[in-house]
Amino acid sequence: MNDKKITVSAIAKQAGVSPATVSRVFNQRELVSPEKIELVENALKALGYDAPLPGPAPAKEQPVIICSMPNGNNYFYNEIIQGIQTSVNAHGSHLLLNQSPIDHGTIQDFLNLLNRVKAAGVILLNQVSEDLLLRIGQATPLVQCCEYQPDLSLPYVSIDDCKSSQKAAEYIISCGRNKIAILNGPLSFKYARDRERGFLNAIENANLTIPRSWIVSLPEINYDIAYSAVCQLLSRDPKPNAFFAVSDTLAAAVLRAAKRFHYRIPEDIIVVGFDNTEISSICTPTITTVSQPRFQMGFTSCEMLFKKIEHPNEELLSLLLETELIIRESTNSAPSPSRTDINTDINERQ
Amino acid sequence: MNDKKITVSAIAKQAGVSPATVSRVFNQRELVSPEKIELVENALKALGYDAPLPGPAPAKEQPVIICSMPNGNNYFYNEIIQGIQTSVNAHGSHLLLNQSPIDHGTIQDFLNLLNRVKAAGVILLNQVSEDLLLRIGQATPLVQCCEYQPDLSLPYVSIDDCKSSQKAAEYIISCGRNKIAILNGPLSFKYARDRERGFLNAIENANLTIPRSWIVSLPEINYDIAYSAVCQLLSRDPKPNAFFAVSDTLAAAVLRAAKRFHYRIPEDIIVVGFDNTEISSICTPTITTVSQPRFQMGFTSCEMLFKKIEHPNEELLSLLLETELIIRESTNSAPSPSRTDINTDINERQ
Repeated sequence: MNDKKITVSAIAKQAGVSPATVSRVFNQRELVSPEKIELVENALKALGYDAPLPGPAPAKEQPVIICSMPNGNNYFYNEIIQGIQTSVNAHGSHLLLNQSPIDHGTIQDFLNLLNRVKAAGVILLNQVSEDLLLRIGQATPLVQCCEYQPDLSLPYVSIDDCKSSQKAAEYIISCGRNKIAILNGPLSFKYARDRERGFLNAIENANLTIPRSWIVSLPEINYDIAYSAVCQLLSRDPKPNAFFAVSDTLAAAVLRAAKRFHYRIPEDIIVVGFDNTEISSICTPTITTVSQPRFQMGFTSCEMLFKKIEHPNEELLSLLLETELIIRESTNSAPSPSRTDINTDINERQ
Repeated sequence: MNDKKITVSAIAKQAGVSPATVSRVFNQRELVSPEKIELVENALKALGYDAPLPGPAPAKEQPVIICSMPNGNNYFYNEIIQGIQTSVNAHGSHLLLNQSPIDHGTIQDFLNLLNRVKAAGVILLNQVSEDLLLRIGQATPLVQCCEYQPDLSLPYVSIDDCKSSQKAAEYIISCGRNKIAILNGPLSFKYARDRERGFLNAIENANLTIPRSWIVSLPEINYDIAYSAVCQLLSRDPKPNAFFAVSDTLAAAVLRAAKRFHYRIPEDIIVVGFDNTEISSICTPTITTVSQPRFQMGFTSCEMLFKKIEHPNEELLSLLLETELIIRESTNSAPSPSRTDINTDINERQ
């Protein structure tokens, strides 16, 4: 090797490749095609650099982000994960998903796991009690996504479930319906309590009364369970002429049950779902639904997490993102779909 | 503390709880209710054991299993993950999901990750080239699930894609259809090549000819892309009167496109999907589909992995599990669904 210092740009010029390629040949050889490696090696020889090229540098350890989510077969999370993954990739980090409940029985295993993978931070999609959230927050930076505990100074990204649900119920009432049932998830979840509250606000504001049996809280978000519940409601009098379902999967079950009892949608029964998952546009008729910005929720919560990792002492603003009501065939026989904003608030908390 | 040795069963008897509860009070206090802890503590005192109860023992580190899967919004994997999770839980281990491609650009990060979490083993749902599979297999025990490389001595659990697809196409032909299109995924995947081969076997065996343009290989499994492709096929002559789609999502796109062109299903066009995901029974009409035993595939591949971890030198038998054709409304206007076995082979390889 001669003494002259050879710059990356001189090598790049000689080889007819970009400086970035030269750099990668030295540092991330895996990413470069054999042809380009040869070009760079020949350029080095031509420039009088005879030493063998270094092998790949020892790979720098990527920070690991853990995203924890509940067990189960819920389509809802896929797009949130895409958003988180996009942010993680942009920060040169690695995402690992942990699919299990976090409760007093499992918390120690979860904390051990964070320790073992030296997690740089955690995004929690689980429903977690306040004391356990505080324990996790002591162990590692964390951001809550979707489900959250509002009274702790731990940041979250979610939507305003109460308002979104109230606006959806107000839309149903504006369609001229007054016999409205709600299909909800388990009330142990904050989202379910908030959506029930928003729904009942709209009912009360419109001076409607509905039987207690029309306020259905299912033990899980499950198509078959919802189908049974709706069939029961439709097989006795009085019957609802509208359903607000807190998930598109449940709304799809209403379509099936209505078909079984030979009710037409939207003429006899209208249905509004929640989430704007693929199911809502695949079903026939397509389902009017409250769209959550799921990709954005995942992406934003992960960006917040990186901010917290880099500036541990800065207070983060929690965010409630906007939802939209997407009107489709299940409430509207007119063919052209339209969008209505139903929630434009951003709640900033200190 | 006195000298007498006190047994767990003696404590359990005294406290009126099970021996397992006593053991948990010593080792996994988190899992026991305060009432039961008090019962056990009182029993210890009554038996003359005065020393304070030990705090929770330092938690044993759970083995970590990594399941790697491709990026993307594919409902197909949810039930496989459930199967893997069930096996992992039964073995007292912990599952972490890694959602990213594994190729020459990412392999080093992936190997670093396995090292960092001290992974006990890996289940690969990704499509991985032979050389990289061998590198991963050198680093840790692995089992391939769904996608696999047949020529390496690395175990896998999958289905016979060629046979399953051929039987599905034979069923379509048996319905009296002779103008059959296939909607396939990218041919870079083994499953897609095998399903195309099976489909073409059936076409050839029945002495049918179909235009080259009816053999569609989409760039990804995507509802919107499939919808466009089917609209194109239905807007020029000759038109197919049957579709075999290698995923229920693609089959759902056929339903939508047929509706747009005012074709009735199954009278004008019949459709067969693949996977038996929730979509196939939620759609109207419901979709005839090739059911993969997804939960079982996940569970079995993970059980095989644990066998390999415990007995590293034992050769494992790879498995091709059975598929079933589930006949629904998209091929059959009769209301009662029935099931037909279309693949009963188990392929054992050494």
